[in-house]
Amino acid sequence: MCRWFAYIGSPVPIETFLLQPGHSLIDQSLNARMGVLTTNGDGFGLGWYNDIGGPGLYRSTAPAWNDQNLRELATHVTSHAFFAHIRASTGTPIQQTNCHPFRHGRWLWMHNGVIRDFERMHRDLVIEVDPKLFNNIQGSTDSEVMFYLALTMGLTENPIAAVERMAGIVEQIAERNGVENPLKMSLAVSDGERLWAFRYASGGDAPSLFHTTDVETLRILYPDNPRLEEVSESSRMIVSEPLTEFTGVWNEIEESSCCIVQGTYISPRSFEPCR
Amino acid sequence: MCRWFAYIGSPVPIETFLLQPGHSLIDQSLNARMGVLTTNGDGFGLGWYNDIGGPGLYRSTAPAWNDQNLRELATHVTSHAFFAHIRASTGTPIQQTNCHPFRHGRWLWMHNGVIRDFERMHRDLVIEVDPKLFNNIQGSTDSEVMFYLALTMGLTENPIAAVERMAGIVEQIAERNGVENPLKMSLAVSDGERLWAFRYASGGDAPSLFHTTDVETLRILYPDNPRLEEVSESSRMIVSEPLTEFTGVWNEIEESSCCIVQGTYISPRSFEPCR
Amino acid sequence: MCRWFAYIGSPVPIETFLLQPGHSLIDQSLNARMGVLTTNGDGFGLGWYNDIGGPGLYRSTAPAWNDQNLRELATHVTSHAFFAHIRASTGTPIQQTNCHPFRHGRWLWMHNGVIRDFERMHRDLVIEVDPKLFNNIQGSTDSEVMFYLALTMGLTENPIAAVERMAGIVEQIAERNGVENPLKMSLAVSDGERLWAFRYASGGDAPSLFHTTDVETLRILYPDNPRLEEVSESSRMIVSEPLTEFTGVWNEIEESSCCIVQGTYISPRSFEPCR
Amino acid sequence: MCRWFAYIGSPVPIETFLLQPGHSLIDQSLNARMGVLTTNGDGFGLGWYNDIGGPGLYRSTAPAWNDQNLRELATHVTSHAFFAHIRASTGTPIQQTNCHPFRHGRWLWMHNGVIRDFERMHRDLVIEVDPKLFNNIQGSTDSEVMFYLALTMGLTENPIAAVERMAGIVEQIAERNGVENPLKMSLAVSDGERLWAFRYASGGDAPSLFHTTDVETLRILYPDNPRLEEVSESSRMIVSEPLTEFTGVWNEIEESSCCIVQGTYISPRSFEPCR
Repeated sequence: MCRWFAYIGSPVPIETFLLQPGHSLIDQSLNARMGVLTTNGDGFGLGWYNDIGGPGLYRSTAPAWNDQNLRELATHVTSHAFFAHIRASTGTPIQQTNCHPFRHGRWLWMHNGVIRDFERMHRDLVIEVDPKLFNNIQGSTDSEVMFYLALTMGLTENPIAAVERMAGIVEQIAERNGVENPLKMSLAVSDGERLWAFRYASGGDAPSLFHTTDVETLRILYPDNPRLEEVSESSRMIVSEPLTEFTGVWNEIEESSCCIVQGTYISPRSFEPCR
Repeated sequence: MCRWFAYIGSPVPIETFLLQPGHSLIDQSLNARMGVLTTNGDGFGLGWYNDIGGPGLYRSTAPAWNDQNLRELATHVTSHAFFAHIRASTGTPIQQTNCHPFRHGRWLWMHNGVIRDFERMHRDLVIEVDPKLFNNIQGSTDSEVMFYLALTMGLTENPIAAVERMAGIVEQIAERNGVENPLKMSLAVSDGERLWAFRYASGGDAPSLFHTTDVETLRILYPDNPRLEEVSESSRMIVSEPLTEFTGVWNEIEESSCCIVQGTYISPRSFEPCR
Repeated sequence: MCRWFAYIGSPVPIETFLLQPGHSLIDQSLNARMGVLTTNGDGFGLGWYNDIGGPGLYRSTAPAWNDQNLRELATHVTSHAFFAHIRASTGTPIQQTNCHPFRHGRWLWMHNGVIRDFERMHRDLVIEVDPKLFNNIQGSTDSEVMFYLALTMGLTENPIAAVERMAGIVEQIAERNGVENPLKMSLAVSDGERLWAFRYASGGDAPSLFHTTDVETLRILYPDNPRLEEVSESSRMIVSEPLTEFTGVWNEIEESSCCIVQGTYISPRSFEPCR
Repeated sequence: MCRWFAYIGSPVPIETFLLQPGHSLIDQSLNARMGVLTTNGDGFGLGWYNDIGGPGLYRSTAPAWNDQNLRELATHVTSHAFFAHIRASTGTPIQQTNCHPFRHGRWLWMHNGVIRDFERMHRDLVIEVDPKLFNNIQGSTDSEVMFYLALTMGLTENPIAAVERMAGIVEQIAERNGVENPLKMSLAVSDGERLWAFRYASGGDAPSLFHTTDVETLRILYPDNPRLEEVSESSRMIVSEPLTEFTGVWNEIEESSCCIVQGTYISPRSFEPCR
């Protein structure tokens, strides 16, 4: 299991949220609290959007807490939308091509969770991927196969419907292979302008997921917090686990639901795999 | 294109042939003469057999000429059969799982060459792999897919027939996809006791390949060479390009042929893809 | 702070003690119990002696739990004396030249602990190193400087006296720089035939250190343990923290003491820095 | 010996000069023409200035031609002043802390060349470094020691005088150690607003060095070149070897000289070590 966070809003130096908070993702790489594993040291990834075309990717197999280049990048690059992910491998090799986020055109995808008994269903799953996309799969994770299944199902046209179809395919193939409760996922998807987050598990007990309260409310709650001055009112974060212990900041996203973040609004929706 | 060599015979420290010769594989990593590329800096691999169960693998993405651990290993490990390979990527990522040799049980496989337009045929090729073996494919190279196709075709039972069938499948799928002259290969396969080497290209012009003259003859030619004293009479090497410039040592293996190295004998055979 | 173990005795595959025990060093890299830090993911090192000249070194900046090459090596190399070390950096960069063990000729050195305020005393300390040895310092750790100070003080002639003088120099320079309680160390030194272990801290509270009970006694305690059948009666281990929870196996080495392991004997001695 | 280039002028995506030119630095990493070595595969570094505080560093031990993260960074980061460097080690280890550029506060430093017999003079040279700066030396190269010597001699106050004194110290210590013609260097130094370049060798035969013709003239010569439209009239580059074969673009910097690049002007000066 992994940890991740996604930010969308006004441009900030990436470090503002990646390095500075007390229980930042870098701290979580050594001391995660809500995951199954406390250490997430099997690779790191950063995907960011800015004016220069995009998104850019930085992925590394070094543990995040060790990575000098990551600190430099986070300190010297600004972005209005970025994904950060720390990996705890569930078995597949430690290599850049297995690090999240994954990218296709303007789209980024990252995932915390697992397809149970993936090794048994791997072949059946990749055969469902659009042959034109097949050769773009570069690594060997379940997460990347999920991305290419969702792309096959029309992710760039209708993200929520495509993810529901992807989840449906996984559950269908699992059934055929006799795998129970195959899917656990907390998922982030973006095209640089909108951000979608999904929380779901086939048998319940989905990975934790939170979104931040709107900035206007937060400024009333915390009038002296310097980070709140740096961001606009339309800024939001989605996180695997809270980055700070401030009351009123973090709101749990319900199981079997997803949400769209755009402008100041977070629109929640129910989520159901579609066969 | 890559460079490789394979040794089988009496146990020697690996460095005897990996580091010491004038135009050793390490030297070839910077200054290959017969390949398409002079620099082979996209990863390295060593596979070795000895008494402690086998074969062991050391694979690294650092250029071979830089790799301190490789020098240590080569100096402090002895082996009676080992493969060494330096990689020049033809496009797939630089990662350990893409470094040769590949291993399955007691079997090692390494390759110099290419499947042309592999990205177009990738999906068709992996679908031919035995579903039970599919999930063992860890990387994204054409070479590893060739290995799993050969295993599917019975490599561990009858290596030559299996490689002929593998080449047949590749050419058949290429035909279906409109790819001409799809296969170029020089290939080494071993189970630790025997060594098979293959040289073939669909349209001719296969990568270079050489075997050494028998040790007894070499000792008459070069009575003072210390390396010849270290090895038994049954020792042989197969190489992509000669490691030294000594006359009478290196014998070209013909195109469209293969050979079995066992004991003092090298048995040549013709090679023809089987559809 | 780091974790380490040292083995000397009859030749065994390195994995016997590196990978197999329940709380092996690899397990400690994720879940150390007695150190200040639970994660030791800032590099790994293995140094081993066998017949082929030596010692060999394998050092890597990947976390030990991730490192495929380490598993291969441990499984396919036997040794009668080896050191293994997992690093938790106290600030210096993550690079191979900062990974233990350090080597000079036939001597290996590894360390858990710290010189407090090392950055303030770094220059004063290296100036004390024999100018002929100075350029052999390859990394930037306090541990390697301690090694070269001990070599300067005659380590290869009289290890205990040399380490006592090294500790004396560190404390003297610390005093001059106004640094209190500068030295914390648990230290292993070997020439492949004997093994020295040291436990000391300037102000008390030295890092934990244990040696195993003699094999003959252990066989009476644990008649069915397969690992005890693989090793001779002269085999011993020194460890930062116990590898298993078996009663009667692990004996604490006292603070301000050292011991020499040779043949079946462990000779304890008191240790006192010498100015 | 290494290859490098430095850019100062109007903000451009780093790739404009790092990746796009025909004989770009990435191409030079495989196929250098003017250096002693054709392959520069022992590490890479990028240092860049932009508005977000200064300078950022990306350094990696992977060969530049392999490094996906470098391509991402170069494509998604803009800068008005940046240094890029590919390393061919003259013996010191391949590690990030040995990769150029080196940084101190707002200052960047990179070097192509060598201090002959550095291992013999290493200790004498570092002793000349200001004790307050000593512990900032993180790697083991001659180039970094030269940087800290220059900083000791007042680099941030008067760069040219400081580098002349640094060269003087090296030659003086060489003389004392019986080393002839100790220094060969082409050097770039910047604070983000100005750029200094130095070309010198103790016994003559300094590494090659070139600066670009002013942009106004180049636009007359090459009215259709798109890269010339992206940059302002005050943009300049200093390079180890020309990035393209266009006539009239590259002007050799003379041996024993240096130049200051600021605004549209390049001011040449003679350079002489000062003892």
